[in-house]
Parts: sequence; C-alpha cells; structure tokens
Amino acid sequence: MSNDQNRVLIFDTTLRDGEQCPGATMTLEEKLEVAELLDEMGVDIIEAGFPIASIGDFEAVSEIARRVKRAVVAGLSRANPKDIERAGEAVRHAVRPRIHTFISTSPVHMKYKLQKEPDDVLALVIDQVTRARNLVDDVEWSAEDGTRTEMDFLCRCVEAAIKAGATTINIPDTVGYTTPEEYRTLFETVRGRVPNADKAIFSVHCHNDLGMAVANTLAGVNGGARQIECTINGIGERAGNAALEEIVMAIKTRADAFPYETGIDTTMLTRASKVVANATSFPVQYNKAIVGRNAFAHESGIHQDGMLKHTQTYEIMTPESVGVTKTSLVMGKHSGRNAFRSKLAELGYKLSDNELQDAFDRFKALADRKKHVYDEDIEALVDERLATAHDRIKLVSLSVIAGTRGPQRATMKLEIEGRVQTEEADGNGPVDAVFNAIHALAPHEATLELYQVHAVTEGTDAQAEVSVRLNSGGRSVTGRGADPDTLVASAKAYLAALNKIIARGEGLHAQHAAAE
Amino acid sequence: MSNDQNRVLIFDTTLRDGEQCPGATMTLEEKLEVAELLDEMGVDIIEAGFPIASIGDFEAVSEIARRVKRAVVAGLSRANPKDIERAGEAVRHAVRPRIHTFISTSPVHMKYKLQKEPDDVLALVIDQVTRARNLVDDVEWSAEDGTRTEMDFLCRCVEAAIKAGATTINIPDTVGYTTPEEYRTLFETVRGRVPNADKAIFSVHCHNDLGMAVANTLAGVNGGARQIECTINGIGERAGNAALEEIVMAIKTRADAFPYETGIDTTMLTRASKVVANATSFPVQYNKAIVGRNAFAHESGIHQDGMLKHTQTYEIMTPESVGVTKTSLVMGKHSGRNAFRSKLAELGYKLSDNELQDAFDRFKALADRKKHVYDEDIEALVDERLATAHDRIKLVSLSVIAGTRGPQRATMKLEIEGRVQTEEADGNGPVDAVFNAIHALAPHEATLELYQVHAVTEGTDAQAEVSVRLNSGGRSVTGRGADPDTLVASAKAYLAALNKIIARGEGLHAQHAAAE
Repeated sequence: MSNDQNRVLIFDTTLRDGEQCPGATMTLEEKLEVAELLDEMGVDIIEAGFPIASIGDFEAVSEIARRVKRAVVAGLSRANPKDIERAGEAVRHAVRPRIHTFISTSPVHMKYKLQKEPDDVLALVIDQVTRARNLVDDVEWSAEDGTRTEMDFLCRCVEAAIKAGATTINIPDTVGYTTPEEYRTLFETVRGRVPNADKAIFSVHCHNDLGMAVANTLAGVNGGARQIECTINGIGERAGNAALEEIVMAIKTRADAFPYETGIDTTMLTRASKVVANATSFPVQYNKAIVGRNAFAHESGIHQDGMLKHTQTYEIMTPESVGVTKTSLVMGKHSGRNAFRSKLAELGYKLSDNELQDAFDRFKALADRKKHVYDEDIEALVDERLATAHDRIKLVSLSVIAGTRGPQRATMKLEIEGRVQTEEADGNGPVDAVFNAIHALAPHEATLELYQVHAVTEGTDAQAEVSVRLNSGGRSVTGRGADPDTLVASAKAYLAALNKIIARGEGLHAQHAAAE
Repeated sequence: MSNDQNRVLIFDTTLRDGEQCPGATMTLEEKLEVAELLDEMGVDIIEAGFPIASIGDFEAVSEIARRVKRAVVAGLSRANPKDIERAGEAVRHAVRPRIHTFISTSPVHMKYKLQKEPDDVLALVIDQVTRARNLVDDVEWSAEDGTRTEMDFLCRCVEAAIKAGATTINIPDTVGYTTPEEYRTLFETVRGRVPNADKAIFSVHCHNDLGMAVANTLAGVNGGARQIECTINGIGERAGNAALEEIVMAIKTRADAFPYETGIDTTMLTRASKVVANATSFPVQYNKAIVGRNAFAHESGIHQDGMLKHTQTYEIMTPESVGVTKTSLVMGKHSGRNAFRSKLAELGYKLSDNELQDAFDRFKALADRKKHVYDEDIEALVDERLATAHDRIKLVSLSVIAGTRGPQRATMKLEIEGRVQTEEADGNGPVDAVFNAIHALAPHEATLELYQVHAVTEGTDAQAEVSVRLNSGGRSVTGRGADPDTLVASAKAYLAALNKIIARGEGLHAQHAAAE
C-alpha cells in the first residue's frame, strides 16, 4: 500500500456486510465473480465473509483468499478464540491475509448485548488482537457502535488495540446515527489523544439510516481516517452501507474539497453495480447516484419545454468516467462464432470451449426469436448458464394456458437428479400455476417472499428477467431466470432459488422432514 | 407559518422537480392524490408544477391550488413575463398562493445557457420578482446553480431580490456538487453579507449526484436556512433530490445535532412513499433509508449465527414512528360490505356509493381466487379502479397460450371508445403476444421503454402488479395494472399507459398521422 498521506484505502464489504442483509444471499460462484471484479477494479481490501458463521461462509472466504491476486482478503471474527482461529484459517492462503476482529464498546451494547463490564471488554480487545496477530501480520480491530461509545473508553480501547498489534483501527457508525461534523471531530479527537495513533491506519464504516453515510464517510476521512469501508450499490443491513461508487466519484469529482486518491478504476463502477445487483437480485433504484439508470438522464433530452440543457452546464462528471456505454445493437441471427467470441471477451467473460459452444447455441436460438440482440441479452444468457451449471433440478419443458377466463394451467417437465417427471397444475394466475407445478414435482417447505420481473432491454420483444426470493428455515435465498417467455423465466427463477437452498446443504427432503 | 427561529419549513417538490424526471409523469388524478396527502401530512409548501410547460401542467397546478386546504401552493416560472403571469394565474385560487421564479447566476450557466451578461441577469432578477409581487404576496426567488455562483454576484442578486419583494430566497445545489461544509459556509456568508437578509427566509435545495443531498440540506439549515426543498423517495432529475423522509427523520432522531422542528406527521411517511412509488412506478430500493423494505429489517430476525440483536442496541427510531405497520390478514371471502367499508376508511379511501359497490364486487371476485387478502391487495384493487375510470380503451377478455414449445399466442377483446373488437397475435413470449394484440387492435407509435412486475404481497398466489413505460413523441408515460394473472396485469398496464397518452391530448390517430 502507498505511504502517501493522501492515499485512501478502499475496503469493500459487499460480500460480508452487504451479503448478510435479508435476501442478499449469494452462491459461491457469485461471490467469486464479485471478488474477482473487485480485485480487478482496484479495491484495496476485500472483506470476503464471516468464516465462523457457516461452512458456506468459511468455504467462500477460503476460495476467495486463494483466487484474489492483488487485494488484501479479510475475514471477520468476534472476540473469541474460535472465531479468530477460524478466520485465520480461512484467509491463510491469501497473498495478503487480514483478520478483522470486533467487539462492542458503547454503554448500551456492553450492557445489553455483551452483558460485560468495560474493563472486561478492554481485556478482550487486548486478548483478541494479540491472538490474531499471532496468526497474521495484518489485523484490523473495530469498536462496534463506536459513534455511541464514551470517548475516554474509546481512546483506551484504541490505544490498547494498537499496542497489541492492530494495524488498522475501525470506528464504525454501526446504527447510522452520526453526522458529518460529529464524525470528523471523533477521528480528530481520537487521533489527537491516543499516543500511539500514528502506528495504525484509521478506518470509517458508515450506515445510511438517516441518509448521511457518504457525507459521514468523507467527513471521517477529513478527520484523518485513511481507510473507507463501503459496499457496491450501498447494500447492507437495514438502510445499507455507504456506497463505494458514490464515495469514489465524490473524491474524484470534488478533488478540491477531498484531496485524496483511491486506487479504483472508476470506469468499472457500472459493471460492478450490475454484477452485484444481479447476484443479489437487489434492483438499483432509477435515481440512485452514479449507477441508477437516470443518474445521467439529462443526457436523454427529455426536459420541460424551454429547460434546454447544455452538457457543460449540468454535467459534473461524464457517463464514460463510470463506464456507462450506450446500449449497442451487437448482432443478429447471421453473426458468426468469431464475432460472438469477441463480444464475450469485450463484455469481460472468459469461457471454456464447451461453455462458448453452449452460449453460442443459446445465442442463435435467441436471435431466431428476437429482432435485436443487445449486450444485456448476451450477459443475461451467459450469466444464467454459468449460475445453473450444477443445478440438481432442471426445467425440461413448460406449457401454460392463461387469461381472464380461467382456469390458469401449467404443464411442466422437470429433470430432478437425472430423472424426468411431468406434472400439471392449476393456479391463481399462470405464475401461481407454474409454481404449483414445481411444488407438486419437488415438494418443499420454502415460502415465496418476493417475485419480480423486469425487461432486460427495451422493446416489446425484450427478454424477461425474473427474481424469486424464497424463505427456507428463516433464511432468504434469491434465484433469477431470463427468457423471452416471462413464464419460463419465472419457472427458471423459482428453480434457481430452490437449487440454492439445496446447494446450501439443506436438501429438500431433510428440510421437509425437519419441518414435520 | 411559525415565527419560531427553530421551525423549518418543508417545501415538497415531488410534483415539479420529481415529476419532471424521465418516466415519472403522473396523471392529474395521481397528482391530486399526492398533493392532498402532502397537505394532510403537514408539508408547508407544495410546489405543484411548472404552469407554462404545458396545458396539463397548468391545469394540474390550478386544480391542486383549489383543492389544497392548508399548505402554500407554489407554481414555478422562469424569468419572463409570460411565465410569471401563467404561474400567477395557476395558483390564483390557492388559499396561500406562491410564485417561485428562478434564473441562473453561475458563470457557466449565464454564458452558455442564458448567453447574458451578469448585469442583465441582475436586472431580470429585479424585474421578475417585482412582477411576481404584483400578482401575489408570497414570492420565492431561486439562484439556479447557486453553489457554483461567484459570491459577490450572488450577494448582489439576493439583496436585489429581497428589495424587489422576494420573501423566500432559495440557493440550490442544482448539479449536486456541493459538500456540507461548503454549503453551510455559503449560507452563513450570504446571510452575513446581505444587509436585508433578515427580511427573507433562506431555502436549501439539494441534488444527490454525489450522494450527499441530505447531509448538504441539514448543513444549509445549520448555516441559517429555514426552508428545505425536497421530494418523497428522493425522486428527481438524474440522481434525484434530497429525500423528504430522510431529512425529517434525521431532524427528529438527532434533535441534539439538528435542533429544529418541522410540521410533518412522520407516521404518514410510509404511506406517502407508497403513493408516490405507485404514481410514478419508480420502485423504492430495498435498502432505501426510512422507507425501503429492509430499512427496519433488523426486526425480521434474520441474522448471522451469534449476531443476536437487542432492539435497543440497534434501533435509533421505531418502525411505528414512520408508519410501518405489519401486513395484516384482513378479510376473506366471507367478509361483508360493512367490514370492507371500514377497512377502506382505515386505509384512507373516501369512495362514493357506486365506487364502493364496484370495489366490493371486485374484492369478492379476488377473495374467491386468493386465499389471503391483505391490505395491499385492497389498495391495488381500489387504486387501479380509480385510475382507469375514464379510460378510452378497456380490456374485455384475454386468453394466452405460452411455454417452452411455442408459439406464444394471445387472443384479446378490447372495448375501444365503446366498440368491442377481437384480435389474435403471436409473439416472442406471452407478454410480447399480449402487446402485439393490443398493437393490432389500437395501432400506435409509442415504444416500450420499461416493463416490470412485482408481487403485491407475499405468497405464490399474490396479485401481480405490472408497470409499463411507453415513450410517445419523446415523452415517457407509465401505466400500471394489478391482477392475479400476470399477463392480464400486463395488458392492463400497457393499456393504462396508452390511455394516459390519449388523455394527454395526443390521440393515437393524430399521433399516428403525424408520424407518417
């Protein structure tokens, strides 16, 4: 890392704080895709997960640690030996491993959550940081609920953590409560009062409950912090974390007010936003800063009569600087394999020969049905195939009758662990009929929490992209499917979610049995 | 209005700055619904539109001016006599009318957009404010692109505007460029330097391009501003405006840092968010602060193992304080008319006897098909009926065949201006087939910009709510439809958008002819 005083490190926690919010669960493949993209984009530290939380989390952190080439890979742990050892084990193979350990320091958290006295908490800080330093050289310590922590106690904990070997000190605004002035003052005060403060990098971590996460983040940096914890699209618990893309572009656009540098290639921000939105099925709202579809919509020429706008007068950053490219008509049914291969490379995919052949066949089938094939169509087609490669339940065929007259009826063929089965089901609408048919073929206890459809591209012949969120045993998983036929896409999305539940190690039958 | 120094006025511009962003077009009925809700919620000033922009805008502002009981109703105008007179005419019948007139004052805007010298702009400020004051007592003047305006010139303009009779001075961050420190200093400087500053109320207006709109807004208030311009859900041009609900809840939750008062009934924020999301078909992202579906999701008990949370430790505001209520199972098929009437009243609807009978019939039909009928189902049913009462094209019946085998085919009956017609069409998927059938029955030039579906409630038998955005002659309109059958809902949504185009005064045939 740079020693330059103005270099700010970007610590991305999309895969930890982002992924742990309800409904944002990602598969291992999705996590790897996100991690590799973050690494390529220039993120300095990737928090890959919370290894003790589950076998799946542990494996994801381990695999990311092995794959990531450049960035530090961090694993989260609470204040106990088992957590820390598990985190250390998970990041062991990283080029640059980090253990990130935390404990609450605010009166309300110590009393109600930890049920411990401040002196006991302080002892744990020293103990856990020391333990982590025995495993790795790079240790981050966080004072959970730091912004509501009593200042004297906070300074004692920070000093002790640094003395015990912490190289990064994070003071999070866990509940999204602080203000820019307050947060800046907090860092100035702590760094002024703690004698060994210059031995560590200070870090900000803001939540957006009151809409001020980005401003608080930048105020903390103005107060002396040099690491920023954030997530792509601002996903995270409750109102989410500070959004990486907003922070990075604020620093770039307002270099006069925020004279710092990050290592982020900003032209990758739009792609990162799409990949995370797809993996989590969390849609990005139209007017989301930087990555919303309206963020640069002054470009589109839709304005009130007379409110004509000149680019230089309303544009403080260019769409190109964040990687927005115009949707381009790429190919039709006469496009050949070489053109398709080049297009995939341009879109950032590296496929094996088999995968390429399969994608090309699917592209040709789509081009037969759809007049215009856009980049987004190709992305949907390839993304879905990569995600479903290891599925236990696959859709073979579907036919549906629907409309105002009823009954709505679906006839479906599924291949379940190699065996093809057929079922017919009615429903309250064609989607319900489709889901009832799946239920009849593969009985399960999961409940539907969310159903969503959007068009991949413009035009009435656009492919439909469907997201389905299922809740199984108190945890949410989301699946998605794309197809020109909304009902086929709905079936694929439901099956994708169901396959995720199975892949999570809770087979449908086991779960069924447990619920009985 | 209160003379209390800590009373901050809330100026809502959802219907002007919000509605003018691409795709957010609302019908007159939708605008009236929003305006009445804002008035009831305690908004101090409602900016109802830009009267000179179109006949539709003028009529909406006039009708809102007549209906609103308590709030000031403002109409926007540029710096010319025609604009100001039109705005004055539109707000004439308001209990408390305001003209809001603006002109750009930044070097880049004056040079490229206005192509005027500063002295000419200053003369126009005096001229336009004087003219407006001859029509109404309450005049607001805005220095467009105020945050990029040269300070000496800004102070000269502000002084002149107040001298000419402006009672409110707005200094917007038009391009979303400022920072909290800068914006606070701006207000402190202007109010310190302009000799007659105490004769006007200063106003903030922030855009969210760099993610700092809410923090900038509050910093401006700390700098002495006492009016906040904002929108529900933060909708608006590009990355949107500062979100009303975030600002109001930040002031309420952090009364120590922001010792101000607003007149907003915060328990109505959730309903306001839903009404605006429905009217614009702009979905609210899950992790949107205050009103996103995950904003209070720490409530739902989905957490990492061991990260058990105690309400007091993570909750800085209660869901009830913003009007979040648990989705309640209200009625089934055996519920009677009186129960239904009470439920509608509880949900805030006032229906005529005919409308009530119609809604009840539709409720019974839904209850026959759907196991659980939730509040949201009833809202969808009533909202849709109110919106479609005056439609020129109505859906009579639809039947669709779809699936993996093709072809996808729709058979549709429409009533077009009283005459029933039938058509059959194939398509690339069932939705495309449905839209092709509509196209065959009612030829038009509009193109599909957006197609979206979400479930109204949880469960596989949920009603589908579909949004369709069409572009006709460069302007976007959005329609929505709800039905247990996604395809029927899709047809309704497409027809709703088409009916909006017709209602806008651009008949399909006229438009068709013009395109030929």
